[in-house]
Amino acid sequence: MNTAENTLSIFALGGINEIGKNMYVIKYADDIVVIDCGSKFPDESLLGIDLIIQDISYLRENQDKIRALVVTHGHEDHIGGIPYLLKQINVPIYASRLTLGLIELRLKEHGLLRQTELNLINADSKLDLGTVSLSFFQTNHSIPDCLGVVFDTPEGPVVHTGDFKFDLTPVNNENADIHKMAEIGKNGVLVLLSESTNAERPGFNPSESLVGGHIEEAFRKASRKIFISTFASNVHRVQQIVDAAQKTNRKLALLGRSMVNVVTVASELGYLTIPEGMLIEASEIRQMDSQRVAILCTGSQGEPMAALSRLSSSNFRQVEIQPKDTVIFASGPIPGNEKSISRIIDNLYLLGANVIYGSGSATGMHVSGHACQEELKLMITLMKPKYFIPIHGEYRMLHHHSLLAESVGVEKENIFIINNGDVVDVSDQHASQTREVRSGDIFVDGMGIGDVGNIVLRDRKLLAEEGMLVIVLTIGKTDGQLVSNPDTISRGFVYSRDSEKLLNEVNELVAKTIGKSEGPNGNRRNSLRQTVKKSVETFLFTQTKRRPMILPIIIEI
Amino acid sequence: MNTAENTLSIFALGGINEIGKNMYVIKYADDIVVIDCGSKFPDESLLGIDLIIQDISYLRENQDKIRALVVTHGHEDHIGGIPYLLKQINVPIYASRLTLGLIELRLKEHGLLRQTELNLINADSKLDLGTVSLSFFQTNHSIPDCLGVVFDTPEGPVVHTGDFKFDLTPVNNENADIHKMAEIGKNGVLVLLSESTNAERPGFNPSESLVGGHIEEAFRKASRKIFISTFASNVHRVQQIVDAAQKTNRKLALLGRSMVNVVTVASELGYLTIPEGMLIEASEIRQMDSQRVAILCTGSQGEPMAALSRLSSSNFRQVEIQPKDTVIFASGPIPGNEKSISRIIDNLYLLGANVIYGSGSATGMHVSGHACQEELKLMITLMKPKYFIPIHGEYRMLHHHSLLAESVGVEKENIFIINNGDVVDVSDQHASQTREVRSGDIFVDGMGIGDVGNIVLRDRKLLAEEGMLVIVLTIGKTDGQLVSNPDTISRGFVYSRDSEKLLNEVNELVAKTIGKSEGPNGNRRNSLRQTVKKSVETFLFTQTKRRPMILPIIIEI
Repeated sequence: MNTAENTLSIFALGGINEIGKNMYVIKYADDIVVIDCGSKFPDESLLGIDLIIQDISYLRENQDKIRALVVTHGHEDHIGGIPYLLKQINVPIYASRLTLGLIELRLKEHGLLRQTELNLINADSKLDLGTVSLSFFQTNHSIPDCLGVVFDTPEGPVVHTGDFKFDLTPVNNENADIHKMAEIGKNGVLVLLSESTNAERPGFNPSESLVGGHIEEAFRKASRKIFISTFASNVHRVQQIVDAAQKTNRKLALLGRSMVNVVTVASELGYLTIPEGMLIEASEIRQMDSQRVAILCTGSQGEPMAALSRLSSSNFRQVEIQPKDTVIFASGPIPGNEKSISRIIDNLYLLGANVIYGSGSATGMHVSGHACQEELKLMITLMKPKYFIPIHGEYRMLHHHSLLAESVGVEKENIFIINNGDVVDVSDQHASQTREVRSGDIFVDGMGIGDVGNIVLRDRKLLAEEGMLVIVLTIGKTDGQLVSNPDTISRGFVYSRDSEKLLNEVNELVAKTIGKSEGPNGNRRNSLRQTVKKSVETFLFTQTKRRPMILPIIIEI
Repeated sequence: MNTAENTLSIFALGGINEIGKNMYVIKYADDIVVIDCGSKFPDESLLGIDLIIQDISYLRENQDKIRALVVTHGHEDHIGGIPYLLKQINVPIYASRLTLGLIELRLKEHGLLRQTELNLINADSKLDLGTVSLSFFQTNHSIPDCLGVVFDTPEGPVVHTGDFKFDLTPVNNENADIHKMAEIGKNGVLVLLSESTNAERPGFNPSESLVGGHIEEAFRKASRKIFISTFASNVHRVQQIVDAAQKTNRKLALLGRSMVNVVTVASELGYLTIPEGMLIEASEIRQMDSQRVAILCTGSQGEPMAALSRLSSSNFRQVEIQPKDTVIFASGPIPGNEKSISRIIDNLYLLGANVIYGSGSATGMHVSGHACQEELKLMITLMKPKYFIPIHGEYRMLHHHSLLAESVGVEKENIFIINNGDVVDVSDQHASQTREVRSGDIFVDGMGIGDVGNIVLRDRKLLAEEGMLVIVLTIGKTDGQLVSNPDTISRGFVYSRDSEKLLNEVNELVAKTIGKSEGPNGNRRNSLRQTVKKSVETFLFTQTKRRPMILPIIIEI
């Protein structure tokens, strides 16, 4: 990479053409600032994979230049990769209070807390990091304490919005600082990177505070126990649930590890106000009058091991859902989770519960945390960017976001829809995208990071859909003929006891195949393996229209 | 099963607590009528399964009593199981013209056409089948020629709605026969079975004819080629696409086998009117002026092998999507398909196409084929049933449908929310549900029907998520000690070349384990297998936090 020393470079190592694993890099001269380090959950095609993180080869190679990792807020897709990053390189982290609190939880789990430099910042902080200086502005989102970042570079100001929406009547009066944004944009920014999650959605989000009213109404109507589920990190939503419980004179129990963790951190740091004596233990619920208790639980996305899923299958030791209990989904489904959520709703109805959920009932128990089209246009209008890079979204979102930018006056040729790794270089106020750095997906599976690659995944897919057949052949070293009958073991293909005939036929076929082949030596053993594989494959496909993985094992004695 | 001879029995063998594999049974005395025989697509947890059909043990055992299979309409979830049923028992089939045409297509594929008795009926037909006589009424749905069925039994009339909605301005003036329904219900029916798909959705569906206007508008605006995708079986939608092409002076090409098949059958039978000379071959598209051509294709649900998916990845030999082409999804996503559809939309934007799809753009290119709440209430109001059985839906849909029935006057205790197999017996005008018949899912995998069961699926899941390890041990017959080093083969666990060290450690561990155990004989060989399995499992979990399937193979020589 030959770039002029005084070039401003901007690129993503994650977050583009995907929702998840956000990581953006701003570099000027020898100073690199990294923004966010998220993880991403695999879709069902990545069999057995736990988590996806960024390929950070670039950061490893340029370690000495990294001045900071700035984290805009505490969601998984912005902090979930931090432990894996820190296992490879050491960087000082800068984040606001709640964000730091949530990062600390994560570092504790990975035993990385002590060795990491954590720096507290807020919307008024200023950081000088070599040739670049940073300032911040408060935004609204579905978690408190979100920051947008302004990079003052010798080329001009670069703004990264973080995740945001505009909520003009926010819970706790935590207003987005529109005045500061206007001030930043007054003279125009050089480059704006803005999030695109809801760029397909017209309009302007309703305020989070509306949700509070709907929750309170549902609490008032409920005649027995209330179960309510939301993202633990949606602290404002949790606050409104606490408020509804207080107003309707109910105690509150927390179910699910992440709910307990986040509520504890948020309360300690003052983001959540829970009245003395309101919280009860799960073990106390059974002794309470059912009209006097509400249960706040994890699992609103249908996660099979979370509290709500276990409650719905009557598989939670300390409490059960009974007829006429109320269950509220104070959440929207993340695309892909609809089916698991529906299954839980079915089970809840079977238990006799009154279920309040989004689809088809307009109950207003959720608003999105991401700016819709009018809000996105407001942000671009405030910032007046010369160059615009839509980030944080699938391609269709980036595409729609770029149309929005055009509609509020950004020149079409000044909009860069990039891929992860594509570098936008700005030099003498002129931006261009001609080169790229390495980027990609790294799979975390158990304790392995990056050891599961395409070959392993391809095998898993084949095993998953067709199963396998191990054929053990014991043959004489000299004559290459079978010493005993072939033995066949199948898994995930057919159930052996039911398919004895088929497997016997395979053994006979193999015996015949071997009989015809010549004695093995060196390569011939390999070719024998191929011959057996091929003939069994053909036979089974004709008989069953399936293609299990065939593993011939040849033992010479 | 001891039921009084003059009992009316009603039950489902599929379609309850699921969307798919519909099959309902009405029995009086010794006369059985079966309604519909659908299939269901497996969800991703059923690894490798192609199709799900009903367990028809009951029908096999009562073959001699089955008077008819009546098919309400030609959708997969109502006809897809017919070839598999006919391979087991022979029954005369009764269906309307288009439905029969689509059944014939299916029977041809399975080589069953000649041996099957197919009877054409229409809304005016009357059938006498022993003690039960059948009549029919026309309904609206997303495929033409749909019938509701009236069973006149000695106990009283039983009505099965089939799939329906009310469209008061239908395409082709194919009105639902509300007057006949009112006549049927005038004196009240004994039992109503009504479909529940949209029981969660408030309101009344807009008319299909509105969609036509929107399609025409989009056709007028398009400056280059138009690709439009919908369900082939939605013949009214296809007719409106044909009309839009005609009005905007475009030729029409059909892509995708099911589109060609259904359009051919529907045209031959007179359900679809395509002007002479409008249809062109896919191979002619390239020679045409791009403003003069539209392409109607399969794949609106994101099916990876269908035309639209292949077009979106530039993987279709005869035609390609070019910048400024228009692509229209004239369809809604079936739950679970959202992700695949989104991926295609991303690719279409990448190709530079103008994409028109549902989410967030209110383009009105689709209306549902299933009655919403007000329509469901209208049907119940028309029929005035004493007893009500909500069918065709997941539990939450049945639940909401039962609330709707209550709201229009059905007694709560006269509503039966049943499971597949639950029998509602009606005797002396009194209904009760106390017994069940066998029902269940049968998996079709390749040519196998029912040979993939829970053990095979459990193995596939384990293989899919964790992979496997085959350990080959050659030991002496007499001393039980290793003759040569153990050999380890892994698939879907780690890639062997990268993980040589780990696999070597496994081999060492196995050698040590064998060394400690005693010589094998009979059972001891089994216990050796268990010991090796256990120790390798524990070792790998400690090292990797994964639990691959371990298959020790012991060869004695």
